[in-house]
Amino acid sequence: MTADFRFDLLAQDQATQARRGRIQTARGTIETPIFMPVGTQGTVKGMLPETLKEIGAQIILANTYHLYLRPGHHLVEQLGGLHRFMNWDRPILTDSGGFQVFSLGDLRKITEEGVQFQSHLDGSRHQLTPELSMEIQLALGSDIIMVFDECIPHPAERSYVLASTERSARWAKRCRDVVPPGSAAALFGIVQGGMDKELRQRSAAQLRDIGFEGYALGGLSVGEETALMYDMMEFSLPLLPADAPRYVMGVGTPENLIEGVARGCDLFDCVMPTRNARNGFLFTRFGKIIIKQARYRDDAGPLDPDCDCYVCRNYSRAYLSHLYRSNEVLAAVLNTHHNLHYYLQLMGEIRDAVAAGCFADYRRSFYARRDLS
Amino acid sequence: MTADFRFDLLAQDQATQARRGRIQTARGTIETPIFMPVGTQGTVKGMLPETLKEIGAQIILANTYHLYLRPGHHLVEQLGGLHRFMNWDRPILTDSGGFQVFSLGDLRKITEEGVQFQSHLDGSRHQLTPELSMEIQLALGSDIIMVFDECIPHPAERSYVLASTERSARWAKRCRDVVPPGSAAALFGIVQGGMDKELRQRSAAQLRDIGFEGYALGGLSVGEETALMYDMMEFSLPLLPADAPRYVMGVGTPENLIEGVARGCDLFDCVMPTRNARNGFLFTRFGKIIIKQARYRDDAGPLDPDCDCYVCRNYSRAYLSHLYRSNEVLAAVLNTHHNLHYYLQLMGEIRDAVAAGCFADYRRSFYARRDLS
Ligand SMILES: [Zn+2]
Ligand SMILES: [Zn+2]
Repeated sequence: MTADFRFDLLAQDQATQARRGRIQTARGTIETPIFMPVGTQGTVKGMLPETLKEIGAQIILANTYHLYLRPGHHLVEQLGGLHRFMNWDRPILTDSGGFQVFSLGDLRKITEEGVQFQSHLDGSRHQLTPELSMEIQLALGSDIIMVFDECIPHPAERSYVLASTERSARWAKRCRDVVPPGSAAALFGIVQGGMDKELRQRSAAQLRDIGFEGYALGGLSVGEETALMYDMMEFSLPLLPADAPRYVMGVGTPENLIEGVARGCDLFDCVMPTRNARNGFLFTRFGKIIIKQARYRDDAGPLDPDCDCYVCRNYSRAYLSHLYRSNEVLAAVLNTHHNLHYYLQLMGEIRDAVAAGCFADYRRSFYARRDLS
Repeated sequence: MTADFRFDLLAQDQATQARRGRIQTARGTIETPIFMPVGTQGTVKGMLPETLKEIGAQIILANTYHLYLRPGHHLVEQLGGLHRFMNWDRPILTDSGGFQVFSLGDLRKITEEGVQFQSHLDGSRHQLTPELSMEIQLALGSDIIMVFDECIPHPAERSYVLASTERSARWAKRCRDVVPPGSAAALFGIVQGGMDKELRQRSAAQLRDIGFEGYALGGLSVGEETALMYDMMEFSLPLLPADAPRYVMGVGTPENLIEGVARGCDLFDCVMPTRNARNGFLFTRFGKIIIKQARYRDDAGPLDPDCDCYVCRNYSRAYLSHLYRSNEVLAAVLNTHHNLHYYLQLMGEIRDAVAAGCFADYRRSFYARRDLS
């Protein structure tokens, strides 16, 4: 454990695996379960940091791959770190860059040492290794660093999944060597193993042997059936230490968050609320609204009558429809605000429900409201 | 005069024609001289209304042509008017739509009745008349309505300028007939006459004969030399009633604002601070910053060390450079915020200087700071 990092389990649901916890970091407290807005390039697209705080963001995620390529981690470090650079003083979790690099397809090549790849920006050649990923994340000043691993595509041959998962475990050890316990940043291991339970179990055991401040499930939400994803969560999460935070990476829809919590997950991140917002897909308690649909053009009502966010208090669906059709900057700003508010409010309600011992009821009413639409 | 509209001249500079005034409207007070941010499509691009207020925006301009085509003035009226639609409760000035329609080139045809044109959005055919322009602006719920006129291109034949200016005067009368004194909205006449002093004088006299709550100079900042523009202001502004507000349309740079005030102008509008912001051109007391220049990539300093705006207090030039290069939504948001703050702060300083009787000194120091760069 780092001096400043600590996780306390505050409540455990009786009917499900849902947990209410608290992570303490040098940059403040994170009440779990929590959703982390994604700030890919050192900004959560269209959101001021102050607004993120107003709607309850406790921690955001930044992307190592993007910041390494532009503006560069040395520059960010020289300018005082990512927090100062982007004017965000609460915790930041950085991913390892692995996910983006492995997504480059023909532009990358994997060796034991790391991954050679070409920049999507200018085609320049780079090699990302576990050590470099740690160096970048440390230079950025991340509060929670993720180990460098391969996010295995789905479907994949068992032999490939095995080899990749083993290599990721060796890489995880190399990451731990660079960021040992007691470092300024916490280091999270990532369970791989594809959709193979035996390999998931093996991966979890290897990571526990190394020992991390927190544990993540990687390689989910990569195109598999939702039922399979839930099955993998259900199987894998209990393999992880109960006294450390658990993070399911890249997940997901509001339903996925509810189900992830029910299976014992504490942390989530996903581009869905922010990316969907820019595409005019808006989340409400009763389901999704596609703002470009003709029916909203003259709709004087708020996006979600039950939502008390700034957007729903001040603007009509008709205005949001107009901004979206007019391709206005404010469309992205307001839609993102509402969607992130929805996600963060949902997590706050989940936390309250778990703490009050009524998460199962909350889960039922969550689905009941959606079924009405 | 409308019941709610009134203009008071609070101070008159001794050395120049600069005036300090106050406009009262049903939706609040406007301290002049003032700059009006442009909200073309029912939004000042990238700015929340609350932020506009924070940085001192007292009145904004909206475009009749754009709102007529999308979402349509009937819809806006049905939704409670433009103020409610866009969540802005301070005064709104609407232009007449003439400027945009006349800019359509081959897509428009002028008759005594009005202008036939094709929409730039979908090619649909429309006719905009003085009466329709009034109907649209009234439906939007504008506080200050502009007469429908032709903004004459430069250069133009004298015979064309004469005919156009005469027609605009007849149109101005038709507008006054639809929006008579005592209406809920104020109506401003627009002096045309091209770059011909005799025609400017004739236009001003015709408008004074009709009588308006305020007067504007149109047809400036249309490509003429700056010296000619100042000359036309200097000649035309004194032709207008001293007890009514004077508005120079579509002007301009910070220097233009200073010189416009010196010649007796009270109101300005221009897309420059907002459009330039989106293109990475930023205004400071010591001149312009082009944020994409390589020198700003690692510049830890604020955009303008003398600026106390939210952007300059919280972000470095390096971060703004990164956002711009990364084509991030926040680049437009932050750059627009700073540029509008600069314009509104400049006007506030001008007002203070005129009130304190030291506008000439202020004007000198304004140029001296810029010469240092
Ligand atoms: Zn909302
Ligand atoms: Zn500033």
